[in-house]
Amino acid sequence: MILVSGGVDSATTVAYAKKQGFSCHALSISYGQRHAAELHFAKTLCERLEVAEHKVVNIGLDQIGGSSLTDRSLDVPTEPTSAIPSTYVPARNTVMLSIALGWAEVLGAEDIFIGANAVDYSGYPDCRPEYISAYERLANFATRFGVEGGEIKIHAPLIDMKKSEIIALGLDLGIDFSATVSCYQANRAGEACGYCDSCRIRRNGFEEAGIADPTRYFN
Amino acid sequence: MILVSGGVDSATTVAYAKKQGFSCHALSISYGQRHAAELHFAKTLCERLEVAEHKVVNIGLDQIGGSSLTDRSLDVPTEPTSAIPSTYVPARNTVMLSIALGWAEVLGAEDIFIGANAVDYSGYPDCRPEYISAYERLANFATRFGVEGGEIKIHAPLIDMKKSEIIALGLDLGIDFSATVSCYQANRAGEACGYCDSCRIRRNGFEEAGIADPTRYFN
Repeated sequence: MILVSGGVDSATTVAYAKKQGFSCHALSISYGQRHAAELHFAKTLCERLEVAEHKVVNIGLDQIGGSSLTDRSLDVPTEPTSAIPSTYVPARNTVMLSIALGWAEVLGAEDIFIGANAVDYSGYPDCRPEYISAYERLANFATRFGVEGGEIKIHAPLIDMKKSEIIALGLDLGIDFSATVSCYQANRAGEACGYCDSCRIRRNGFEEAGIADPTRYFN
Repeated sequence: MILVSGGVDSATTVAYAKKQGFSCHALSISYGQRHAAELHFAKTLCERLEVAEHKVVNIGLDQIGGSSLTDRSLDVPTEPTSAIPSTYVPARNTVMLSIALGWAEVLGAEDIFIGANAVDYSGYPDCRPEYISAYERLANFATRFGVEGGEIKIHAPLIDMKKSEIIALGLDLGIDFSATVSCYQANRAGEACGYCDSCRIRRNGFEEAGIADPTRYFN
């Protein structure tokens, strides 16, 4: 079971899991994100990487708002901040992992992969290693595995890697990053703004890795 | 923040939280359940109890299936079982608490109530006290509270109560149980089958409490 958003991290994570020999059931979440283009790229990515199955599940996180990614009345910030930025979506990873956990339980899959990263990231609380550990612990109480035997493992193979290292790994695993979308304001064609936090981290990653940035920008 | 399904437990939990002085923001989840009538009764309950706000959020758990409550090709069992029954919805409470957590974070609410019960229940893994504790621990890593200060508390005031005790408490708090729906096969009018696990536990609860069962049955 693997969460796929269609960006650099999840693309690399899928390729990594496949390399490890896992049969991948990929899950993307349509949560009312403003950059819904990523879902189209997630689908294309999953087709290219020949995952066993790909589902897109709808969750109305725009019904609770509280983030510039789900509330169109808020602007996506274009300057860095030392606080938790407005692009943070309350409980997003918890919701997404929960759907993944449910589907994993249906399939009898004990391995859940997520491309969370806590180095070159936006300071979201639900990307930290201690969060991943706490989720893994919860998952085993939450499901039949905890009652009937078996053990859920949450894999976050990129958690301690720099963005440039993730990009190098992804390239090594054959990912075409021109077909990934990271931008929070991506247009329908998947072109990026170049200024949001996600664009900045991605662009710096390519620069630090010494690799030409294949991103298509609309600005 | 309080999860409300429209049954005996959540009705009693809302009344209990109100009695404790909490301003209640109620959340119901439309997850593709076969007994969607409960959502209408949840709404009516919230109106009667004058909660501050009630939201119904859509989550496509029928897209992952694996339960007789979300997959119409499976029958709801009418006989008790010692195993986890097919009415168990994989990760349902984890998904519902996650949406509640997200909305709580948006509101700045640190108290989340759930009517989970581990005495007269169907053996669902995500109703046990150890699950609730693990979720509380996760919640504090998952959110800005864990970074900026504050502490999420998951309240499950009914967790150790017998169904008859819950009913007595609810009556004491003024709940009209004729306007609650527990049945997994409830029809649109909220009438109950009388045979599913949920009906059986509810009926036994009224009997044990020595209170006339106000449930309307279609069988």
